Amino acid sequence: MPDAIITLTTDFGEDSPYVAAMKGVILGINSCARLLDLSHQIPPQDVCYAAFFLHSAIPYFPPEALHVVVVDPGVGTERALLYVEVNSHRLLAPDNGCWSMLARSTSPRVVRLADQHYWRPNVSATFHGRDILAPVAGHLSRGLDPSLLGPRVTDWKEIDLPEPVREQNGLRGEVLFVDHFGNLITNIPGETLTAKGHPVRVKVDEVDVSRWVRSYAEAEAGAVIALVSSAGLLEIAINQGNAARELGAGVGTSVHILFPSAQE
Amino acid sequence: MPDAIITLTTDFGEDSPYVAAMKGVILGINSCARLLDLSHQIPPQDVCYAAFFLHSAIPYFPPEALHVVVVDPGVGTERALLYVEVNSHRLLAPDNGCWSMLARSTSPRVVRLADQHYWRPNVSATFHGRDILAPVAGHLSRGLDPSLLGPRVTDWKEIDLPEPVREQNGLRGEVLFVDHFGNLITNIPGETLTAKGHPVRVKVDEVDVSRWVRSYAEAEAGAVIALVSSAGLLEIAINQGNAARELGAGVGTSVHILFPSAQE
Amino acid sequence: MPDAIITLTTDFGEDSPYVAAMKGVILGINSCARLLDLSHQIPPQDVCYAAFFLHSAIPYFPPEALHVVVVDPGVGTERALLYVEVNSHRLLAPDNGCWSMLARSTSPRVVRLADQHYWRPNVSATFHGRDILAPVAGHLSRGLDPSLLGPRVTDWKEIDLPEPVREQNGLRGEVLFVDHFGNLITNIPGETLTAKGHPVRVKVDEVDVSRWVRSYAEAEAGAVIALVSSAGLLEIAINQGNAARELGAGVGTSVHILFPSAQE
Repeated sequence: MPDAIITLTTDFGEDSPYVAAMKGVILGINSCARLLDLSHQIPPQDVCYAAFFLHSAIPYFPPEALHVVVVDPGVGTERALLYVEVNSHRLLAPDNGCWSMLARSTSPRVVRLADQHYWRPNVSATFHGRDILAPVAGHLSRGLDPSLLGPRVTDWKEIDLPEPVREQNGLRGEVLFVDHFGNLITNIPGETLTAKGHPVRVKVDEVDVSRWVRSYAEAEAGAVIALVSSAGLLEIAINQGNAARELGAGVGTSVHILFPSAQE
Repeated sequence: MPDAIITLTTDFGEDSPYVAAMKGVILGINSCARLLDLSHQIPPQDVCYAAFFLHSAIPYFPPEALHVVVVDPGVGTERALLYVEVNSHRLLAPDNGCWSMLARSTSPRVVRLADQHYWRPNVSATFHGRDILAPVAGHLSRGLDPSLLGPRVTDWKEIDLPEPVREQNGLRGEVLFVDHFGNLITNIPGETLTAKGHPVRVKVDEVDVSRWVRSYAEAEAGAVIALVSSAGLLEIAINQGNAARELGAGVGTSVHILFPSAQE
Repeated sequence: MPDAIITLTTDFGEDSPYVAAMKGVILGINSCARLLDLSHQIPPQDVCYAAFFLHSAIPYFPPEALHVVVVDPGVGTERALLYVEVNSHRLLAPDNGCWSMLARSTSPRVVRLADQHYWRPNVSATFHGRDILAPVAGHLSRGLDPSLLGPRVTDWKEIDLPEPVREQNGLRGEVLFVDHFGNLITNIPGETLTAKGHPVRVKVDEVDVSRWVRSYAEAEAGAVIALVSSAGLLEIAINQGNAARELGAGVGTSVHILFPSAQE
């Protein structure tokens, strides 16, 4: 049996000692654990970003991995910390909805971390990642039965990303995520692009996106293009450019789809 | 026995091939070594930052780990490279004081790297991380006796972070570290916050910090707050904000504590 | 036998879920694989940067490692994806020349990925790193014979970095790479610095570099210096400073060498 895999996703940044401290705590409990960084560049306290990130990444992992998520604006308050099993994935995360998109069509098993026996002896008020989640991850990776962590719960915070809205001539959606290349990932299903067999018209704010392509390099450099993202969503990009910067767009920017029947 | 853990802490940045080259050299000597990034975003040549970083992270690790530190403004000069055992932690680092805070109340074992047998055959003048520290780490992780690396030494460079100064009505300290969230970690012990049973008054430069809280989210969004950091130090923060940016504060900014008896 | 090592080099940034998705796919096929980040901060779609990066890092690795490279402006076009064995190193990369500098004086074995049996079932048009390279890496790390991946090819794209040009009184080269410290790595061989036994004169654009040193700290803080980089190339630096910023120099900035005989 390979050694346990524990992934880490935080908003701690690469320059702080907080990630390192968590790694130390985990290895102090299970020195065989294989640690894997997913990202430490979730924007500070941005639970929605974390939700999109996890939704885009966790489904690709095998069940062997245990995912520790620390994006936790409510640290030190009464918000719970949770152990979650959803679609055969296992996570440890604050109860702020960051994982709930993974559970859209399934019933997760959720345990509230309560038994302090598996925590560090002195729990700070500001760093539960180090003091609670890391040691619990260490114990779980050694085979601890999750039901010993605390009571099962049936209620948790959920985040739903905004859904596109049907309009008379099409759909109104918005940008969910801007990636490192400045590509704009929207909440509009990619298959809409060929609704009724015809390419639709796409507008980002007031800018018309004239071209629909399958991949970036099909367009000339600098062209604003619409395509289906690798997650199956409508994506707006500029070949060899940065669409977010050049269109002045970001998370929340509205994106309109005009169906063929409504086009003159 | 699990495979050896070797951690890496550098100021090389994520974009340079220097970290990758070090990883290659280590694995070339011990392909079983488990490599773990702590940070490659230590600000360039900032030995004080590295000292605070290591002080905040290394104590959480189990003794199995070997910590390689490359923040080395003196590379190519006569400064020594050291193998250090301190409080059961093991490090390889330049002799610039970056590890000395770990040895405050203990006697470390310190060996100066001298035997070139364990180095790369051609040592460059500018990259001892790759040419000396990485191969030595590889050999140590395979069980090499550290006493073979060179002579034991009893003298090394020390860094001491500034201590708070007693003043008539309180304490004057300063900001030691600004984390990714813009939180200001000071050199003032956290317990000072409740000196003589009363919350004290805190000033950052000339700004009064009106509220003392246990955790960020106890305050309304935007409030400037004082709290005890996860390392037990006085911390100044802004809930859901960036205290460094909004207060114009950084490393070295003065922080005053006014004791209750001195308050009107 | 230790578990397989798979390294990842991409231009995806640390904040996107793309790297995490690739890690998940690899572990889903080989949960024993040991994943190692080389960099995810290759500048977006900068194949030349990737070429320099790989050239500077891969030679230090043992043959056990399999290197996955995703800097892929041509994703979704007809450009091939390749498996490469060169100097006992193994890579998976797009056919854009990013690895070709490793094959300067050797005959690589190159296989074009063609057999979809080793790919994800639904291949997107924009993320072949996740859908093709990651699963192929997973299978190779489990021992798959590379000849099953597709046909051997004898033609591939090559990148050659610019060579320095001989001029009447010396050499004209240029900056190839700017590292995290702002040091300028040029394409001029380091041994040129002592041509004919005398230090030469070096100019960056129109700025004279007055000092030649072996290591940064030999010069006073702030001095512009020339030295031999850790890769054996002429490097321009500022001790305790950032040469790129302070000289306004970057990739492509011209660098002149004036030989002693031509100096008055």
